[in-house]
Amino acid sequence: MRYSVADYLLDRLNECGIAHLFGVPGDYNLQFLDNVIAHQALAWVGCANELNAAYAADGYARCKGGAALLTTFGVGELSAINGIAGSYSEYLPVIHIVGSPCLAAQQRGELLHHSLGDGDFQHFSRMAKEVTVAQAALTPENASYEIDRVLRESFSTSRPGYLLLPSDVALAPAVKPTRPLALTVPAADAGVLEDFRKAAQEKLTESRSIALVADFLAQRFGQQKALQQWMDDTPLRHSTLLMGKGLFDEGRQGFIGTYSGAASDEGIRAAIEDAELVICVGVRFSDTLTAGFTQRLTAEQTIDIQPDATRIGDRWFSGVPMAQAVEVLHQLCKRQVAHWPKPDQKPPALPACESGQLDQHALWQAVQRFLQPGDIVLAEQGTAAFGAATLTLPPDTTFITQPLWGSIGFTLPAAFGAQTACPHRRVVLLIGDGSAQLTIQELGSMQRDKQKPVIFLLNNEGYTVERAIHGADQRYNDITPWNWTQLPQAMFEHSQAQCWRVREAVQLDEVMAKVAKAEYLSLVEVVLPKKDIPELLQAVTSALARSNSGAG
Amino acid sequence: MRYSVADYLLDRLNECGIAHLFGVPGDYNLQFLDNVIAHQALAWVGCANELNAAYAADGYARCKGGAALLTTFGVGELSAINGIAGSYSEYLPVIHIVGSPCLAAQQRGELLHHSLGDGDFQHFSRMAKEVTVAQAALTPENASYEIDRVLRESFSTSRPGYLLLPSDVALAPAVKPTRPLALTVPAADAGVLEDFRKAAQEKLTESRSIALVADFLAQRFGQQKALQQWMDDTPLRHSTLLMGKGLFDEGRQGFIGTYSGAASDEGIRAAIEDAELVICVGVRFSDTLTAGFTQRLTAEQTIDIQPDATRIGDRWFSGVPMAQAVEVLHQLCKRQVAHWPKPDQKPPALPACESGQLDQHALWQAVQRFLQPGDIVLAEQGTAAFGAATLTLPPDTTFITQPLWGSIGFTLPAAFGAQTACPHRRVVLLIGDGSAQLTIQELGSMQRDKQKPVIFLLNNEGYTVERAIHGADQRYNDITPWNWTQLPQAMFEHSQAQCWRVREAVQLDEVMAKVAKAEYLSLVEVVLPKKDIPELLQAVTSALARSNSGAG
Repeated sequence: MRYSVADYLLDRLNECGIAHLFGVPGDYNLQFLDNVIAHQALAWVGCANELNAAYAADGYARCKGGAALLTTFGVGELSAINGIAGSYSEYLPVIHIVGSPCLAAQQRGELLHHSLGDGDFQHFSRMAKEVTVAQAALTPENASYEIDRVLRESFSTSRPGYLLLPSDVALAPAVKPTRPLALTVPAADAGVLEDFRKAAQEKLTESRSIALVADFLAQRFGQQKALQQWMDDTPLRHSTLLMGKGLFDEGRQGFIGTYSGAASDEGIRAAIEDAELVICVGVRFSDTLTAGFTQRLTAEQTIDIQPDATRIGDRWFSGVPMAQAVEVLHQLCKRQVAHWPKPDQKPPALPACESGQLDQHALWQAVQRFLQPGDIVLAEQGTAAFGAATLTLPPDTTFITQPLWGSIGFTLPAAFGAQTACPHRRVVLLIGDGSAQLTIQELGSMQRDKQKPVIFLLNNEGYTVERAIHGADQRYNDITPWNWTQLPQAMFEHSQAQCWRVREAVQLDEVMAKVAKAEYLSLVEVVLPKKDIPELLQAVTSALARSNSGAG
Repeated sequence: MRYSVADYLLDRLNECGIAHLFGVPGDYNLQFLDNVIAHQALAWVGCANELNAAYAADGYARCKGGAALLTTFGVGELSAINGIAGSYSEYLPVIHIVGSPCLAAQQRGELLHHSLGDGDFQHFSRMAKEVTVAQAALTPENASYEIDRVLRESFSTSRPGYLLLPSDVALAPAVKPTRPLALTVPAADAGVLEDFRKAAQEKLTESRSIALVADFLAQRFGQQKALQQWMDDTPLRHSTLLMGKGLFDEGRQGFIGTYSGAASDEGIRAAIEDAELVICVGVRFSDTLTAGFTQRLTAEQTIDIQPDATRIGDRWFSGVPMAQAVEVLHQLCKRQVAHWPKPDQKPPALPACESGQLDQHALWQAVQRFLQPGDIVLAEQGTAAFGAATLTLPPDTTFITQPLWGSIGFTLPAAFGAQTACPHRRVVLLIGDGSAQLTIQELGSMQRDKQKPVIFLLNNEGYTVERAIHGADQRYNDITPWNWTQLPQAMFEHSQAQCWRVREAVQLDEVMAKVAKAEYLSLVEVVLPKKDIPELLQAVTSALARSNSGAG
């Protein structure tokens, strides 16, 4: 095949560290798919539907730093758009490629399938503008530089990009790129950086106690290693919110656990809020992370490092990339660390399991014992994420949750994507029954691709997180009861999955021992009390109920 | 409970003939759901995910003339938006109610879950504007008249409407409506109507042969009975496209089968295209319905009746509602019918089944024998719809397919919605394996609600319609092989579903005899050759392949 726009796009994606393309075929993208199949370094990963594919791409991007998604025009892209919106909300650079009708048919305004029948082929691009950071409608003439622009903007802001690729444009000739795509972030203005350094030094010098809170944007903008190095060099009391959990090695000196505003363990709350200076790195205080905005941190008390600006007290330093701000503060802390008390606080222990029953306490105790260094742990929004917030993760754990966008069903396909990204790591998925019903199909894709995640299906008979917010006994919080342990077999003809239904605490440990190193996909249905929820979630749901009734 | 905005909305929906609300709960709509549960005449129908719920609502609207869908803000509404776009493209009045954060939290621009985290709560309303005909952001002050406006516009244009309902606005007091919502269409201007009548009479008088093609918009704008009456009074050769199949009693005099442009049976093609006058009622010639725009009908030769305008030759008569135009032509035909040849043509027989194997020919022969008067038949886009195009439907059959929007997976939840609308009719679903994977979850909802559809799962190992367009042996057209007959059991704890896997033609008839009056959901997996497709689909896919390669 002659080198084409399709090849150019695939080469560029590959340069960005993307080795897999998730999606669903459709007649407007089939020709492009020929190039995908033929590509040396990029593999096609078909999913059962487009929303699942978008979630899988998002999970992949959380592990690899970027991902790509292919759908067809209209029907496919709109099915995926909630997943793309999640990637936008939570800062993941997912490149959404949409195979569209050929240019001439669009120009003629033909009454084509997958259109609204009005000759306007821009409806869906306009919708994509709301949830992507850059968009392009590719033509043979603009394809090379528009692909480069969208990828550059997407990766530099860590947000999704949208490429509309007409079926004939994919085949148009292109010239192979000779130089790699420059994805570097512009450095800060030297004067601004110097002002920032001075102000930071002054702030650090006058503060007699210090704490650091880092969250998801620190991961997204590549600061995980730098932050761990900083905390190793100059140990400070440090924490993440739920969204950034897994950013730090949680066993090292100074790590104190997950901060959740007033819903935090009191020791954690005090360590953060009572510090004279709190350095926040990549933090956004959203409602579910803070039990309804209960964090008590003044502007005066904080240094707030965002992706390309930093605030000290009430003064903003614009255009300082996060990496530079982190580096400056890291170096300044070295001079100052001796003046601060030693951070000898440890994360709180999990709530004791007193009942002997298989309840939330027993579950999280067992999960804590089960986790191993290097695991990828996905915890679905709901009891899973808020229970997992209290775990102390082993070293090198990747933790994936989606508390801001909070689209239930996300983690099951995301686990498929994460396992695709990291075939040699153990993937542990914790998901409720209500959530798993939304996106169950990828149990099939996982097995087709010989993945062996360990899935804990928390069966508490419905939408338990919603029962806690409103309508505890209302029928709308019920779901159709499924035979969970039959699903892996039903969704793959050659299934060798192993499934268990567990009703007792002691049995859970036995099953965990069996699945710890399973050769095939394992699904453990954990039967839990219908209204039992983790303490942290209780605080969050009370806040949400107040807000939804308009009581603020 | 005090009479509230929620009650007002539910009463208005009920007035429009809507007795069920489909959807998925979320914390921003839970309070509203209390009112739904408490409502005397409106029932809640929970679905496994929002896209499925939107498809179910669409299927319901095709049977009842309207439907309502409830989702939560952001995540829920975007998951459903492809379904809403389908309802827009194919003209179904589905009212999409989105439970949103309370007004005050929106006004404060809070960093809430299910938002993009930027304080802008209008992103998704703007997206909805592209695929709904009317939208409103409800407040306690505007709720009554804005609900009325959106419902009126939606029902008068037969397209979806969007209502953003903040959680606290749902609870705000309202005054029960005293008069029903006026959904009447304004009548034509008397002068225009008279001009139209004269021009039509002239046209009819000068034409020595006549045919009528009606399609989906005739159904959507309520002309099914009037058209059948017209054809009974003055039998003309008449036809539908695939999209409007089921509009006519296909056994009556003059019905000649499905028109598909050059891909039609030659007798049908000639009867339409060679007529001196062709009256088109509610027809839109889209690509898949016409094998790539191969219809040969001149403007001079046609009278084109659209929802609120009619063309005779090259002259448009604006503001003439379809009902009035149909009535005028019906009356004029009475005077003229004696001058036209008697319409003694019958629909062509199905292609003979010669191989003795279970192939497409054998399948459609068997389906033809299986169908009964009063069935609701859903045929998924792909081999199912294009195979079904050649059936002769028994009287009072409702036929549901989605060839313009063409979102695969649509018909399975749509069958759930149709059965909810018409609990006493037999629902027959014909769907391919690739399509069924997208939306399989509603097998559970069907059984929960004690529905007993007959599902023919056409297993041809992947996306066969796409193999026919491009990449016949490419891996991207494969799907994960499922154990189809295990799925109903896996998706309902108390399943009594009956499932069969059929590989031989003779066996198919035996199984059909068993499921004809089943007491429970029946799933018949029909194993078909991987690349076997109906003749009509061959013509369509060849046209699509040409168009996608840019060859027009």
